[in-house]
Amino acid sequence: MMNRHVRLARRPIGKLRSADLELVETPIPDPGPGEVLIRNTWLSIDPSIRIRLADTTPNGYLPPLQPGDELSGLALGTVVASRSPEFAIGDLVSHTLGYREYAIVGTQAQTIGGYGAPARIDAGQLPIQWFLGPLGSAGLTAYVGLFEILELTTTDVLWVSSAAGAVGALAAQLAKLRGTTVLGSVGSPEKVAYLRDELGIPAFDYHDGPLPKSLAALAPRGIDAYFDNVGGDHLTAALDALRPSGRIALCGAIAGYDDSAVPGPPNLFTMVSKGLRMRGFRAGSFTHLEDSMRREVSGYLADGRLIHRESVFDGIESAIAALLAMLSGATVGKTLCRLDT
Amino acid sequence: MMNRHVRLARRPIGKLRSADLELVETPIPDPGPGEVLIRNTWLSIDPSIRIRLADTTPNGYLPPLQPGDELSGLALGTVVASRSPEFAIGDLVSHTLGYREYAIVGTQAQTIGGYGAPARIDAGQLPIQWFLGPLGSAGLTAYVGLFEILELTTTDVLWVSSAAGAVGALAAQLAKLRGTTVLGSVGSPEKVAYLRDELGIPAFDYHDGPLPKSLAALAPRGIDAYFDNVGGDHLTAALDALRPSGRIALCGAIAGYDDSAVPGPPNLFTMVSKGLRMRGFRAGSFTHLEDSMRREVSGYLADGRLIHRESVFDGIESAIAALLAMLSGATVGKTLCRLDT
Repeated sequence: MMNRHVRLARRPIGKLRSADLELVETPIPDPGPGEVLIRNTWLSIDPSIRIRLADTTPNGYLPPLQPGDELSGLALGTVVASRSPEFAIGDLVSHTLGYREYAIVGTQAQTIGGYGAPARIDAGQLPIQWFLGPLGSAGLTAYVGLFEILELTTTDVLWVSSAAGAVGALAAQLAKLRGTTVLGSVGSPEKVAYLRDELGIPAFDYHDGPLPKSLAALAPRGIDAYFDNVGGDHLTAALDALRPSGRIALCGAIAGYDDSAVPGPPNLFTMVSKGLRMRGFRAGSFTHLEDSMRREVSGYLADGRLIHRESVFDGIESAIAALLAMLSGATVGKTLCRLDT
Repeated sequence: MMNRHVRLARRPIGKLRSADLELVETPIPDPGPGEVLIRNTWLSIDPSIRIRLADTTPNGYLPPLQPGDELSGLALGTVVASRSPEFAIGDLVSHTLGYREYAIVGTQAQTIGGYGAPARIDAGQLPIQWFLGPLGSAGLTAYVGLFEILELTTTDVLWVSSAAGAVGALAAQLAKLRGTTVLGSVGSPEKVAYLRDELGIPAFDYHDGPLPKSLAALAPRGIDAYFDNVGGDHLTAALDALRPSGRIALCGAIAGYDDSAVPGPPNLFTMVSKGLRMRGFRAGSFTHLEDSMRREVSGYLADGRLIHRESVFDGIESAIAALLAMLSGATVGKTLCRLDT
């Protein structure tokens, strides 16, 4: 039996292109002692993998992939062979060896964004792929960013960037459901309409003019908190728009993923003049909050107060296209690759 | 009677030069209702005034001075005429209208760095000028930065930049007295010797090679906390040297004061990968901690465990030279201008 998987063909320069990645086929190995063989059913397509395609990665991050290396990422699958006492054939698990049809996973699996060893999933009646989205890493990222990092209150005005994305759309809605005033920024008129008409969240397209002007139109008295998925000029604009004692949660910086030479905000000193706080985080450091996140989010999903949208690509042969589409802003909500059809 | 004071002669370009400022003489006005006339005895010479000499100031900061405007800054003086029921002739007060021999101060005085209306000082047997230094704004800045912003513990390794300066030397010593491992960076071999031999704090001269290398020599396993008085390349080096969950207190950014176009750190994303926290502050927002700071610091000063050094310039005619010397790194400890001789 053969396994198809995505690997880095050559180091991308600037915007990631299709030819930078390749789909290859190799025999499926047998699991060794303590390992399981997983048939992947859902792959999470996240912007963060772009970071590891550059020739250097930020201090503290996973090392860069080398040409020929397999891509990895969060995934769901079914155990089809097990040499581990912890997992039986048929178990549904989440793990970190995505971008492939079959994965050999040990209990000491590689850590991605703080997530490590495979974990059994009890999905009940819920769509299993939600455990990569609102009930998984995306949900925990939004939840932690809002309530642990920003310590959001009902009197805050919050700006969420990339607000139609997997994390952004959850963050914007969760904040609103908790009573906070929220505005979002997105990259297309369609996404503005989605935010405004479907999620009930005022939003602007960042292409539509200078960010300070767009922000001022929706938050004339400034903002108290910023959930950053973008970095670059968005972070600069947030520093200027924040009121004294404002807070920033640094979650991602997609603006810089194609170009590691993006300078930091030139106005960082406003943090001194306004007494601002900024904190970076990864959901994987807060897995102890996963249960409370799942209780709250699944309640909202069940009664329809939280809208979750997916952009689903079918088959491992579409995984590269899915990644390119997501990075270029062409997808809405959680981007997934489905392998079980 | 005439009053000599320092004003902005022309907008500085790059490094501040003597001819950018001028000493002028005007008649001393009479205090109006609610105002007092203060004869200044000590002027605090602080780097932050440089920020207001540029043509724009950071969002949230005081507006820029215009050519012809008087400089201001923290000062101590004696009330020599009063039309306020709150102050009597002979009262010793701190206020924010420095850079001049006589000041007319209302109870609604201009706020400098969070400090506002004049405050009566009870110096007892202590040197009065300590209330501009270790028992005043410099002491509170060090204290707040260490214990409120960085939440320093005894297991931390702390880097203090500009560690021979008014705030830095206090911060480095206070941290050490509380049991934290401290290292400092300074701008000359003499200052390295001062830190090492007189304060007992390992230090390096930032001119002596790449910052990451100098830091690694004194903190081979990285740092947990960074007290930033410099910004620029120092902040970039700190982001790389910080261990996971590390903290940064942004206090000042003297590297950028001569050139407002200094970009932010290009490696800000390490805050995400390492879960770092950064917080800007000004002591003036924490005056409720002044009493506890004074209790602790005056104890250390009394028993000789805290060494306080001053660079004193005499007479208002030396105020411009004092500011230039301090900004160029030629002074050690607290820079003061003494007017009572």
